[in-house]
Amino acid sequence: MADQPKTPLLDKVHEPADMKGLSARDLRQLADELRAETISAVSVTGGHLGAGLGVVELTVAIHAVFDTPRDKLIWDVGHQCYPHKILTGRRGRIRTLRQKDGLSGFTKRSESPYDPFGAAHSSTSISAALGLAVARDLGGRPEHGIGDCIAVIGDGSISAGMAYEAMNNAGHLKNRMIVILNDNEMSIAPPVGAMSSYLSRLYAGSPFHEFKQVAKDAVRFLPPPLQEGAKRAKEILKQSVMGGTLFEQLGFSYLGPVDGHDLDTLVPLLRAVKTHAEGPVLIHAITKKGKGYGPAETSQDRGHARAKFDVVTGEQAKAVSNAPAYTKVFANALIDEAGRDDRIVAVTAAMPDGTGLNLFAERFPDRVFDVAIAEQHGVTFCAGLAAGGMKPFCTMYSTFLQRGYDQVVHDVAIQRLPVRFAIDRAGLVGADGATHAGSFDIAYLANLPGFTVMAAADEAELVHMVATAAAHEDGPIAFRFPRGEGVGVDMPERGMPLEIGRGRMIREGTAAAILSFGTRLSEVEAAAERLAARGIAVTVADARFAKPLDRELILRLAREHPALITIEEGAIGGFGSHVAQLLAEEGVFDRGLKYRSMVLPDVFIDQASPRDMYAVAGMNAADIEAKVLSVLGVETLARRG
Amino acid sequence: MADQPKTPLLDKVHEPADMKGLSARDLRQLADELRAETISAVSVTGGHLGAGLGVVELTVAIHAVFDTPRDKLIWDVGHQCYPHKILTGRRGRIRTLRQKDGLSGFTKRSESPYDPFGAAHSSTSISAALGLAVARDLGGRPEHGIGDCIAVIGDGSISAGMAYEAMNNAGHLKNRMIVILNDNEMSIAPPVGAMSSYLSRLYAGSPFHEFKQVAKDAVRFLPPPLQEGAKRAKEILKQSVMGGTLFEQLGFSYLGPVDGHDLDTLVPLLRAVKTHAEGPVLIHAITKKGKGYGPAETSQDRGHARAKFDVVTGEQAKAVSNAPAYTKVFANALIDEAGRDDRIVAVTAAMPDGTGLNLFAERFPDRVFDVAIAEQHGVTFCAGLAAGGMKPFCTMYSTFLQRGYDQVVHDVAIQRLPVRFAIDRAGLVGADGATHAGSFDIAYLANLPGFTVMAAADEAELVHMVATAAAHEDGPIAFRFPRGEGVGVDMPERGMPLEIGRGRMIREGTAAAILSFGTRLSEVEAAAERLAARGIAVTVADARFAKPLDRELILRLAREHPALITIEEGAIGGFGSHVAQLLAEEGVFDRGLKYRSMVLPDVFIDQASPRDMYAVAGMNAADIEAKVLSVLGVETLARRG
Repeated sequence: MADQPKTPLLDKVHEPADMKGLSARDLRQLADELRAETISAVSVTGGHLGAGLGVVELTVAIHAVFDTPRDKLIWDVGHQCYPHKILTGRRGRIRTLRQKDGLSGFTKRSESPYDPFGAAHSSTSISAALGLAVARDLGGRPEHGIGDCIAVIGDGSISAGMAYEAMNNAGHLKNRMIVILNDNEMSIAPPVGAMSSYLSRLYAGSPFHEFKQVAKDAVRFLPPPLQEGAKRAKEILKQSVMGGTLFEQLGFSYLGPVDGHDLDTLVPLLRAVKTHAEGPVLIHAITKKGKGYGPAETSQDRGHARAKFDVVTGEQAKAVSNAPAYTKVFANALIDEAGRDDRIVAVTAAMPDGTGLNLFAERFPDRVFDVAIAEQHGVTFCAGLAAGGMKPFCTMYSTFLQRGYDQVVHDVAIQRLPVRFAIDRAGLVGADGATHAGSFDIAYLANLPGFTVMAAADEAELVHMVATAAAHEDGPIAFRFPRGEGVGVDMPERGMPLEIGRGRMIREGTAAAILSFGTRLSEVEAAAERLAARGIAVTVADARFAKPLDRELILRLAREHPALITIEEGAIGGFGSHVAQLLAEEGVFDRGLKYRSMVLPDVFIDQASPRDMYAVAGMNAADIEAKVLSVLGVETLARRG
Repeated sequence: MADQPKTPLLDKVHEPADMKGLSARDLRQLADELRAETISAVSVTGGHLGAGLGVVELTVAIHAVFDTPRDKLIWDVGHQCYPHKILTGRRGRIRTLRQKDGLSGFTKRSESPYDPFGAAHSSTSISAALGLAVARDLGGRPEHGIGDCIAVIGDGSISAGMAYEAMNNAGHLKNRMIVILNDNEMSIAPPVGAMSSYLSRLYAGSPFHEFKQVAKDAVRFLPPPLQEGAKRAKEILKQSVMGGTLFEQLGFSYLGPVDGHDLDTLVPLLRAVKTHAEGPVLIHAITKKGKGYGPAETSQDRGHARAKFDVVTGEQAKAVSNAPAYTKVFANALIDEAGRDDRIVAVTAAMPDGTGLNLFAERFPDRVFDVAIAEQHGVTFCAGLAAGGMKPFCTMYSTFLQRGYDQVVHDVAIQRLPVRFAIDRAGLVGADGATHAGSFDIAYLANLPGFTVMAAADEAELVHMVATAAAHEDGPIAFRFPRGEGVGVDMPERGMPLEIGRGRMIREGTAAAILSFGTRLSEVEAAAERLAARGIAVTVADARFAKPLDRELILRLAREHPALITIEEGAIGGFGSHVAQLLAEEGVFDRGLKYRSMVLPDVFIDQASPRDMYAVAGMNAADIEAKVLSVLGVETLARRG
């Protein structure tokens, strides 16, 4: 954690308007200072360093040329927005990035008018920019008005179907808009897919395209009075001749590739586009992720999100841990199963490291598939693998599986194909905040006929659930587990398949029963201890399955206790709703039962530590204890005691 | 409904193996007979005629050349599969298409081994075929084995992002697979988007591509011993030189365009591909939807799905109707609102006719946007429009909105943008069966913080809900309505915004309360009449809102009745689950309440009339009556009486 860098020019830039009078030389200096400030800030907060460093010059150039917030600047994903935040009035809070009550790690509409459209999941920016451009041309008048609409999207993000859909639509509608393809050749994981190799070929300048057509398209961008950089602009034109076919076939005017770190190129190019653009324009900028900071330039996935670090050495602060991370437990368990069963294959959508499948790939390189940012395809690809007799593990974060929901319904569930869904980052996830919360998967999977839905209560349970999924042939099965470290339980030698639809008793009491689904179990046990200290003995059970439910266990808990409380790390509509439906149908409520269902509250919870977020949600041990006391009507006593 | 056509050759083909010895001339005759049989069958059953007629020759050629069911033939969407079903052992049941207990209108794994991967939603076939091809190359051994994997996909379907994702992945993986682009230039709606105009340019033979590269790619498909059609094959090669760039850039070998109705071209081409293909191959076939049947050739959207018809005149049997269709009521209400508010715009994903937006487009052509089959983009495009100050109505079928679920969460709900979701085809939909049921939207929308979720109980309510959505500025709002005709209530002059979160009383009783959400209300009222005839007076209320709930109404119903039953046209996790959560939290169950929630059962229900499907679901008037009697414990009496 170094001292803050000297930034005399940046100190004078409080908002983008302050950049308008700066010379080319000043802008270069501003970029250098902005880079230093970004490194310094992330060294304190942790976060996504490489992405921001890669777009320092783009950020400066865009804000120098365009008139934000009237012009709408939309950063795809948003990991790269820290320099943008520094330039747009948020420098004073930049060292609160991704902290509780601090700045979001992404762009966020509620945070600043300079964030006209928030992000976090990839590939949304072109759709949003097109929507804003169409609104402008129809006379839409939001606060600050609408001028140019600019989407900055990385080469990984543009490979997603959604970005393609948006370009297809933009090329058809022909409203003026600007897409800047930030081609850093290194998104989170090394980009995969045919699009990626296509972009590489463009970069290499292969002669793809007939000269005349491109020249014709490009020539109208030449600023008639070439105020500066004319020579540069000519070079760009020359390069443009070399590529661009695919984007032009989709209806975009293509400019590039250009050096995305060369302000003397970027600024005149953007000025020319601003002055002359008609219809949709794509500017292809080549950048280097982590540019200007050695440790970030050379790392690959590690440049994505990093802990606090020492600016000089690049060494990251490591948290001391006693328990293995769930992701790694999952990966090792899957590797173990795959060693015994060569039908097991694994699929990730551009997150090999985040899902632990990088470890699987070391052992079984031919049995892991990175489909790129393409969850829709990824899910149906798994369905095809299952139809072909394999045992696919579709390994995605809960929040990203939302991208493939229709495919889960239509291609997997309706066909009862045994795709195994390994759902990481279930529940609240910490620094990434509301956009990355895995809140809805229990609800949206457990109501699908034929699905089996599990949640691991701890890391040993996770191992058994991997084995359960591997053994399960009768339709689709899902298991969810959270971000972060396990609770430190003894680990089994190997996973053993669980009996489908059977929970387990953890401790027995009489005052009330708490039925937990997922990793709130440790909080429930802590609450049970606190209640025991008050002389209140509660039963604790681990449901393991949201579907099929352990009817026998649930009805027994309801029968033998005056109160039954369920808890899950998910929104309403999931496990607790299924339990309530069972209790209602069985007439349990007819006779009276103090039933409560603890679910995530009806708000999007901002970033903080997972523990703090669960405090906001009211789902930690103290909250569970309070809930039991309240249900039993001993609330007042409790407060006195 | 004409007599069945004479089909001497088709009569001998019981499965594709019977086609192996047929001469080129025989295959042409078989195609003619297959076309006549398809027309005859659909004249009896109704259904999708044009799509099947467009692929008669393709179907014959594929089955003549490849070895299904070992070779895996996957029809995208599946509307075009009727001729395929006739050739693959299902001719005897072909006049049960889309009927209760009959053949599905789509391909279906459980129906035949010749349907290796079912369909109904678009753009899944390439993902599925790639999954099967990869499974094959990894040694997957499903029943019937795996040979070649062939996806047949239309020009409308290939414009979806999912198809692009799949091609991107296939071009990267390089497993052998075959995509046949069935380019009929007329999918459901006239195809839109830049891809569509690109395909038109390919078809027009514009010189896109450098000669040498294509010639090199294509030459290895020339069958060395040209057994037949050598001249044709050379012509194909010559045409290939003219196009194909975009697909080749994605890593496919491109062959075409070819005449998809010319068996003398198709058969040798497919033989050549079968013998020589390496890696992914795309064959671009130009076909005519409705080919060979005048009335289907000339209609556009009407060729999509049609009622029973007279073969000679093409005249369709019209059902007599007393009430307007919900879709039309919606469209007219939206037109009415849009006439008073120029911020209202409407978005459809390739379903202008199905959603009624064709009517809107007649009146406001500049304020309606068909984004192509691109629900992901469509939702975020609406979010951008809302951010730009417009009032977008995102108009989609419930089942297709699943495609944009992540965008609903991430771009709309988290940002609280006032996108209006007009959700057509809610609940069970009839002949299209399980794949098109709108079962899950209540659950997956009502658990999103800040969302308002309504369901119309009848066509007059729908008019008011359009007005409510138009007036609502505080975050996203959705309203759902079913396929088919309204109940015939009086229609209001114009829609009036409803009070948010407020239901309405329909009739008052004391024995029990039934709280309905959506168009089951008429069945509930019928049940109430039947109960009244037994001397049992029940209260009936229309919830209108699943979110926010009318807490006051619900708690009053619970307080004033011994039993409360909710009903909704959706799966568990939705309205009833929210009501149960409220009742639990308020301690209503503590004191005992006969609470039941009637939801769609935990099965996928096959096609039949909506009424018959709701009978299977147990949600018609008689079922509701029985439920009340059962809950009140007068079941036995009822049976006696």
